[in-house]
Amino acid sequence: MSTTLRWDRARLFVLDQTALPIEERELECRNAAEVASAIREMRVRGAPAIGAAAAYGLALEAAVAEETDVRRFGRRLEQAAALLESARPTAVNLRWALRRMLRVLHGSTEATVAELRSALLTEAEEIAAEDVRTNQAIGRHGAAMVRSGERILTLCNTGGLATVDYGTAFGIVRTAHENGQAVSLIACETRPYLQGARLTVWEALRAGIDVTLITDNAAGAVMARGGVDRVLVGADRIARNGDVANKIGTYTLAVLARAHEIPFVVAAPLSTVDLETPDGRSIPIEERPASEVTHLRGVRIAPDGVRVANPAFDITPHHLVSAIVTEAGVATAPYADSLPNLFAARIGR
Amino acid sequence: MSTTLRWDRARLFVLDQTALPIEERELECRNAAEVASAIREMRVRGAPAIGAAAAYGLALEAAVAEETDVRRFGRRLEQAAALLESARPTAVNLRWALRRMLRVLHGSTEATVAELRSALLTEAEEIAAEDVRTNQAIGRHGAAMVRSGERILTLCNTGGLATVDYGTAFGIVRTAHENGQAVSLIACETRPYLQGARLTVWEALRAGIDVTLITDNAAGAVMARGGVDRVLVGADRIARNGDVANKIGTYTLAVLARAHEIPFVVAAPLSTVDLETPDGRSIPIEERPASEVTHLRGVRIAPDGVRVANPAFDITPHHLVSAIVTEAGVATAPYADSLPNLFAARIGR
Repeated sequence: MSTTLRWDRARLFVLDQTALPIEERELECRNAAEVASAIREMRVRGAPAIGAAAAYGLALEAAVAEETDVRRFGRRLEQAAALLESARPTAVNLRWALRRMLRVLHGSTEATVAELRSALLTEAEEIAAEDVRTNQAIGRHGAAMVRSGERILTLCNTGGLATVDYGTAFGIVRTAHENGQAVSLIACETRPYLQGARLTVWEALRAGIDVTLITDNAAGAVMARGGVDRVLVGADRIARNGDVANKIGTYTLAVLARAHEIPFVVAAPLSTVDLETPDGRSIPIEERPASEVTHLRGVRIAPDGVRVANPAFDITPHHLVSAIVTEAGVATAPYADSLPNLFAARIGR
Repeated sequence: MSTTLRWDRARLFVLDQTALPIEERELECRNAAEVASAIREMRVRGAPAIGAAAAYGLALEAAVAEETDVRRFGRRLEQAAALLESARPTAVNLRWALRRMLRVLHGSTEATVAELRSALLTEAEEIAAEDVRTNQAIGRHGAAMVRSGERILTLCNTGGLATVDYGTAFGIVRTAHENGQAVSLIACETRPYLQGARLTVWEALRAGIDVTLITDNAAGAVMARGGVDRVLVGADRIARNGDVANKIGTYTLAVLARAHEIPFVVAAPLSTVDLETPDGRSIPIEERPASEVTHLRGVRIAPDGVRVANPAFDITPHHLVSAIVTEAGVATAPYADSLPNLFAARIGR
């Protein structure tokens, strides 16, 4: 199986998620600008995956930079970092990963360009390796709250494709499945980009997890007939107060879950929690192109010239969130206390 | 402009709604079986439109029947009526229209086959003509509750295409627009069949109504930012207690509307109200083919072999319904009283 991201001799190979599930095709990126394009065009997507991709993007720029002067080399990388960070505005993991990379760059003031190149690649590889360990920890913490036989409804894709490997919300389902907990998955197709239909179903079938595909429209009806035990989603940014930015449609699921008294659980690495963002109103919401709604795989499905609103994310207020599962443990309300405590616990380990 | 249904010399021409908005194409039906297929394949859809189509389907069968014996002729038409009624189970208008036609058939015991043929066509034409008048009355009653400048969110298509002409919920928007009330429309695309993106947007653009297309997933976010003043939908069947069967996703909109304190209004002719159905649990919900979800215009969008749940309708319980607009006036809770009163008012006119 191809992996989300693969580094090979100063090239980053990205599994092109726009082609899945019809075709498994890799996109070769040769510099930071090509990685930024791959992120913008959603060839690689998912908050943790684009964080790691951006880190590799900077390592790639370092590898191909011909500057021999350390200051010029540094300026080039800072420009590349700004380009990568601007590729998508909502997920905070991009910024988080790039800050880690820039700390390596600026923290080694005596280093040569060659040494910096090597240190940056090492840091990107560490970010990627950490992401897998983080997801496995999220899986353990989350599976501990899942009862045997649960029917778990999810949106978008939070699996190995949205991360370096394993997955966040999907990682919990994966762990529960591997534990023999007989869970089943209800995948909302997730318009407009169909990450649920295209990617989550693909991953679930490969992992042998029982999965049923529904349109996003059917989530309420499935809940009303008692078919959902838990809603489990990922996040693109979590504010200090526990407000969650995630794929458009998440908020609707949270309102539905509350109306049906179903637990609504968010799974994300601490790198998605941004203590500098006080609440959901401070999170920029990316507006994606109208063509994502009016066309599907190049086929027009709406009349020409119609105005479209296509926000890629929405904000779920903290009072609708039952729990947030991270690699450092599970946070519950009040999140303004519990989230900082998880950071402290991680540092204290 | 082509019309939803057009009778021409013992042929029923159906505007093929599966081809819209890409192509305006008519389908020629030569007997009841072809009309039943057109209904089943959703080439004509919308509760009032399929009621009228079924009536014409029976008139068509009468026109082509070679039986000269009145009893044999009657048996053939009864079989045709059963076939037409089975084409789609949820909307009650099919049954309502066919019962009217069969009353004509059985009410003229002394008539010849030729006289019955003529009476059946007259009745079908009357059902169609009534539908237009009914929609205009719904438009008047509904527009009276709409304030100037309202932003009205709708699902599916309830316009001229869903009816013989004019529309139910869309008819209210049309009337308000014609009254100069400066209303705007937010059309949910309505997966899986995209009646919103394909049909409602097409009708709104033609009528000069301000329209914005969103994915179904975005409805909650648009409400949360204060962008919706009213939710206005149609119905496929309304039970005696006010429970509403309508396009899948309606229930989700009703839950969202309640959470945001937005009026949730249903518009439908009295032929959609079935006093014989006590509540929503008694309404059969059609399960449509998986391919509607896994494919779009023949393009596969989900992995092969995935299990799909594709209920075409859902039930919105009466306590989430702010008002039901009919041609005889507006019903509010308790619907078990107000709906029968509207029938009585109509008979009393």
